[in-house]
Amino acid sequence: MRMYDVIKKKRDGGALSAEEIRAFVEGYTKGEIPDYQAAALCMAIYFRGMSDEETTELTLAVRDSGERLDLSEIGGLRVDKHSTGGVGDKTSLVVAPIVASLGLTVAKMSGRGLGHTGGTVDKLEAIPGFCTNLSVAEFSHTVNKTGIAIVGQSASLAPADKLLYALRDVTATVDSMPLIASSIMGKKLAADDDCIVLDVKTGSGSFMKSVEESRALAKLMVEIGKRAGKRISALITDMDRPLGYAVGNALEVMEAIETLRGGGPADLLELSLALSAQILYLAERGSLAECRAMAERALSSGEALRTFEKMVQAQGGDVAYVQDPTRFALSPCLREVKAAASGYITRVNTEQYGLASLLLGAGRNTKEDEIDLGAGYVLCKKTGDAVKKGETLALMYAASEERLDSAERVLLQATEIGDELPRPRPLIFETV
Amino acid sequence: MRMYDVIKKKRDGGALSAEEIRAFVEGYTKGEIPDYQAAALCMAIYFRGMSDEETTELTLAVRDSGERLDLSEIGGLRVDKHSTGGVGDKTSLVVAPIVASLGLTVAKMSGRGLGHTGGTVDKLEAIPGFCTNLSVAEFSHTVNKTGIAIVGQSASLAPADKLLYALRDVTATVDSMPLIASSIMGKKLAADDDCIVLDVKTGSGSFMKSVEESRALAKLMVEIGKRAGKRISALITDMDRPLGYAVGNALEVMEAIETLRGGGPADLLELSLALSAQILYLAERGSLAECRAMAERALSSGEALRTFEKMVQAQGGDVAYVQDPTRFALSPCLREVKAAASGYITRVNTEQYGLASLLLGAGRNTKEDEIDLGAGYVLCKKTGDAVKKGETLALMYAASEERLDSAERVLLQATEIGDELPRPRPLIFETV
Repeated sequence: MRMYDVIKKKRDGGALSAEEIRAFVEGYTKGEIPDYQAAALCMAIYFRGMSDEETTELTLAVRDSGERLDLSEIGGLRVDKHSTGGVGDKTSLVVAPIVASLGLTVAKMSGRGLGHTGGTVDKLEAIPGFCTNLSVAEFSHTVNKTGIAIVGQSASLAPADKLLYALRDVTATVDSMPLIASSIMGKKLAADDDCIVLDVKTGSGSFMKSVEESRALAKLMVEIGKRAGKRISALITDMDRPLGYAVGNALEVMEAIETLRGGGPADLLELSLALSAQILYLAERGSLAECRAMAERALSSGEALRTFEKMVQAQGGDVAYVQDPTRFALSPCLREVKAAASGYITRVNTEQYGLASLLLGAGRNTKEDEIDLGAGYVLCKKTGDAVKKGETLALMYAASEERLDSAERVLLQATEIGDELPRPRPLIFETV
Repeated sequence: MRMYDVIKKKRDGGALSAEEIRAFVEGYTKGEIPDYQAAALCMAIYFRGMSDEETTELTLAVRDSGERLDLSEIGGLRVDKHSTGGVGDKTSLVVAPIVASLGLTVAKMSGRGLGHTGGTVDKLEAIPGFCTNLSVAEFSHTVNKTGIAIVGQSASLAPADKLLYALRDVTATVDSMPLIASSIMGKKLAADDDCIVLDVKTGSGSFMKSVEESRALAKLMVEIGKRAGKRISALITDMDRPLGYAVGNALEVMEAIETLRGGGPADLLELSLALSAQILYLAERGSLAECRAMAERALSSGEALRTFEKMVQAQGGDVAYVQDPTRFALSPCLREVKAAASGYITRVNTEQYGLASLLLGAGRNTKEDEIDLGAGYVLCKKTGDAVKKGETLALMYAASEERLDSAERVLLQATEIGDELPRPRPLIFETV
């Protein structure tokens, strides 16, 4: 099989065979297929798409591209949730302890990645001492002891995805549905959980701007998961505004702890409960309503919070920070961002809200960037809220005034204030 | 300007600016833009196409990618013809002496390339002693003395084309109209002739299988040439069957000499006269009919042949071979290919006829391949001819019986024999 023929076949609209897809992924991972041929194929896939069969094969080839971790020591029914990513999305920090406190096993491997804030493991590292770099043996041991552990993703997990993503990122071939789906699901399937709930975001802060696109991606990923023998479902949820009020690493952990304590923003609470209920439902713990009630009880009883504390302790983190979140160190420079006009917040460009967080230092632009875990902002007003000119829209934290200046400019530009109350938008659009 | 943005713009159907195209070609030639980004852009161009403006800019950027040769020492009106390539096409060997004998300047730089036979310079090297590797000073001197010289293309001529072609060749992005046009015209414009006549082939032995595609390519290249200030036109001519009877390097030179002597196959003669007339017409030597008559006289008077001899002598070749073409050494193994059935030759797959020539050793499959200048075949029957079972279709020459075996098999498979006389096809479809 020649790579040239594979590219040409896809270019001409043909369907690639399982053998062709495997040969591409394996050859590329081994460095036998050059970047330029992989780039040409990705662009051809961008234009021609892939059938569900092809996308599943691509996903399985990505899954199988590295060493399979031996997690056979871990007991129980292993569950995970995965979000396609959004601004202020800290649901993993709430959902994982809820379902673990109810007896499911959360052995979560999470990427760091690039973006407006760090990934889940970066956020957890805002808790002093918290170690996300465990060996497979330590990881298995911790999960078996506490029912939960969250660690950084091993470099040997689905390495094809890392290589392909890096290539797609510089060749304008990221936003292709089959490539997105196989990238996400390749990693997810490599972790080999029993039940997976996907949180597919939709709106201005998401990769997928329309509900239709999000639905298509969700259906595709659920289809791939089912073909790979997983119990899997997806929620399509709103990312046309940030989730909760806090954006940043320490700030998001603080808000998650607040939610685990029974407080927290209504949208974060609601989405965390819905995701938890979905996971419990896939784990066959009862009807969806019963699962929802179980999740609510796990919060109100304090069991979820105690599970979170156990995880922090087991991974070396200082539990005092969980017990008193005011201890978290935030970045030294503070700015109150004031509304430039009176009216309602009619719309925000959530992608730009993410950029504001990145500019404050809370995220990575390149892999080498250091994250400022204390940087970020807390919103005081969100879409639909009434504001008066001069009223505080957000409190920003950063290491320097320059960072505050640029982030403030972006946040203000991304915030539309008008006369009419915007049409409400659901938090959860549908279940796939 | 980021290359990523250029790729994305084209991917999304935008028109690239002159600056973006220049930055791409210059950056790629310097090695500053990696192959994988160039490959992704070529595939995006494959799908999205380019406007005439964009294609012209790309062509000019390719033209300007190397050192411009200083050919200012060469006097007279410089003319050239260029063929998009076909099986048995040796018209340059006839046309160049005709127009040079009529006082136009032919300072031809010709590539070697890959294909079923060598390029024009390879063919000329079948004449013992013929040197195609002249310095710019020698080249200028020879042209001024004899009115004609044909040399190998300098590596510094439009190097971007060489790099881009090599990349397109392995990424299935060769057959894109704007990329083909800019590749051909970038090199042609770098040679900086005053008048250019393009011979755009059409049919089964051509890159462009349909007249419509050939017309589109011809129009595009003529448009580019005009925008670059050249006198230029194109003939769309048949390549649904080989041109003439001889295919191979020495064999084609022999047939060209036969034509210069006033004999030769009717189709080769007719096309050579038509192309010569076009060149003379562009050079404003009279009406098209007058130019045609001049070309005919150049042949009948023997002036064109004498000019060819002068060129051979000036470039170190042995004129005795021109005077007595039976001296040419052909490859030692000979095969008479016999018809497997009786009837008419209804159709031939001319691309496969080219492959047969390659298999005999007359062409290059990779740049490193050595050409066997004495290999090839002479057809005894062509499309439309009646054949009897067992009658000779072609005489093949090669270095080994194995080569003859595989070429014979391909040639026979590519030759359809049926009961009905095929519809005649014009040799020249139109002038653009």
